[in-house]
Amino acid sequence: MITFNDILEARERIKGVAHRTPVLTSRQFNEQSGCEVFFKAENLQRAGAFKFRGAYNKIASIPDNERRRGILAYSSGNHAQASALAARIFGIPAVIVMPHDAPKIKVAGTRGYGAEVIFYDRYTESREGTGEKIAAERGLTIVPPFDDYQIMAGQGTAALELLEDVPDLEYLLICCSGCGLLAGCAVAAKHIKPDIRIYGVEPEAANDTWQSMRKGEIVEIPVPKTIADGLQTSAPGKLTFPIVKQLVDDILLVSDDELIDTMRFILERMKVLVEPSGAAAAAAVRHRKLDLAGRRVGVILSGGNVDLEKLCGYLTK
Amino acid sequence: MITFNDILEARERIKGVAHRTPVLTSRQFNEQSGCEVFFKAENLQRAGAFKFRGAYNKIASIPDNERRRGILAYSSGNHAQASALAARIFGIPAVIVMPHDAPKIKVAGTRGYGAEVIFYDRYTESREGTGEKIAAERGLTIVPPFDDYQIMAGQGTAALELLEDVPDLEYLLICCSGCGLLAGCAVAAKHIKPDIRIYGVEPEAANDTWQSMRKGEIVEIPVPKTIADGLQTSAPGKLTFPIVKQLVDDILLVSDDELIDTMRFILERMKVLVEPSGAAAAAAVRHRKLDLAGRRVGVILSGGNVDLEKLCGYLTK
Repeated sequence: MITFNDILEARERIKGVAHRTPVLTSRQFNEQSGCEVFFKAENLQRAGAFKFRGAYNKIASIPDNERRRGILAYSSGNHAQASALAARIFGIPAVIVMPHDAPKIKVAGTRGYGAEVIFYDRYTESREGTGEKIAAERGLTIVPPFDDYQIMAGQGTAALELLEDVPDLEYLLICCSGCGLLAGCAVAAKHIKPDIRIYGVEPEAANDTWQSMRKGEIVEIPVPKTIADGLQTSAPGKLTFPIVKQLVDDILLVSDDELIDTMRFILERMKVLVEPSGAAAAAAVRHRKLDLAGRRVGVILSGGNVDLEKLCGYLTK
Repeated sequence: MITFNDILEARERIKGVAHRTPVLTSRQFNEQSGCEVFFKAENLQRAGAFKFRGAYNKIASIPDNERRRGILAYSSGNHAQASALAARIFGIPAVIVMPHDAPKIKVAGTRGYGAEVIFYDRYTESREGTGEKIAAERGLTIVPPFDDYQIMAGQGTAALELLEDVPDLEYLLICCSGCGLLAGCAVAAKHIKPDIRIYGVEPEAANDTWQSMRKGEIVEIPVPKTIADGLQTSAPGKLTFPIVKQLVDDILLVSDDELIDTMRFILERMKVLVEPSGAAAAAAVRHRKLDLAGRRVGVILSGGNVDLEKLCGYLTK
């Protein structure tokens, strides 16, 4: 379990390194969705997603003599870039294990931060297996994408900042995949405001956490197909799920078409770019998956790393 | 002429109504352009462009008994929407005179703010003539797009805010068309920091201000062809140009391809949407139209109103 104090410590570690991202609002979004929404723009975070908070906090908390040998991360994209950038800031080697079909922009971004990229086939190989073997051989510390207390504590700083900027939120909606962001933010938000209601949001096809919440234990699904490439994990984490089960009210589901509609609105009217996963929490509000009439709602725009060719494919289809 | 005090008064009028837009930075933009750039994100301004500052300041400074009868603006673009929104905030009628073949999306946007749209035939009628006739008949106050001291003073608040956030700027680059933004910002910036260097930026095809600066008097050109639809005026203003001539160091020129390259970088890496005109000042830095090596440079991202189908056409061509 993590405590609010872990999140305060994470905040001190990332201070001056991670961006304190702005909170955006849109009168038109509010009018159309019938509530007042405050968007935490983690797509404007360094390396383009909230992931930098956790990765940097994790790497900063590795003992110096271990950290020096380098880190290894396995990720479909945003955690890869975040870990590569954090490693570069510490001046240490980074190996990133990525699926062979990861978005080009994410592979290029990861290499651009100086990391070595090693591919695996996401439909036939386990990324953990591939990663652990290389880490053992080279003496690298693994920086997991979500199932780690320092990662969760880092991600929780996003909710901490949002509630400092907008203290009287009644609801908080956060996309979930492995649930590192959701768990970390839930710990932060429930400590600051115990009566806040917290909802996770998943694509309909990637409803592993939704199923797990209903069953009361972790349910694993086959690798789901959705345009939200950041939300394609098959199960919530062993460390994250107990926190989600305890603190999160429920999980909401959105379709790929609802993600595209929401990305379009956010780009066209709010002038910021979110990736499909980054639009999930906003899509749940916009497409009224919950009765939020008249409420003050926090939404995390989790990331903005999307190939522009893919983006234009979505927008013009 | 306007003074710094006019800009301070404008700031008081727009306070709490216009957004105080954030200042964005990008390490990668800096690395690639060899200087340190601070982007004032007016694409995140209300109605999607800096134009709201001037339109609101102008309407706020009309005596109450005149303002009550309503305003009239002629524009097919950002000034139309900004004036319509400002009028709606004051609860007064707004008439916007637009060319009969204006893009439907801009007509819809303007009507969306509650304005009455009146069309004129751009091949047989003058918009000023049409506008003045209607304004006289209905007793409406004209809100000009740039050639007005209250408009300039409103636009100048963008530079005022930028220099408050980043006091030690050495250069300031601003796109110019009718030069309302450039003139207003030049007055603000030169008062705050007399040794700052100020450059206007135009598309190569729309070089009316560049020509005017060289000749020392206003040069009028035929309506230019450029993708920067916000920078298509044929001459700087009678009131704006003397200020530009006195305070601005020079005008820089960028090509349409350089605008597209810069829009792409800003969208892909910085995750914000700018329209072609909105990328002009950034394009001049990115494509090294001036020796800025090691300097601290302010750039105004003037607007973000671009049709997404058009955007995707630019990005995939």
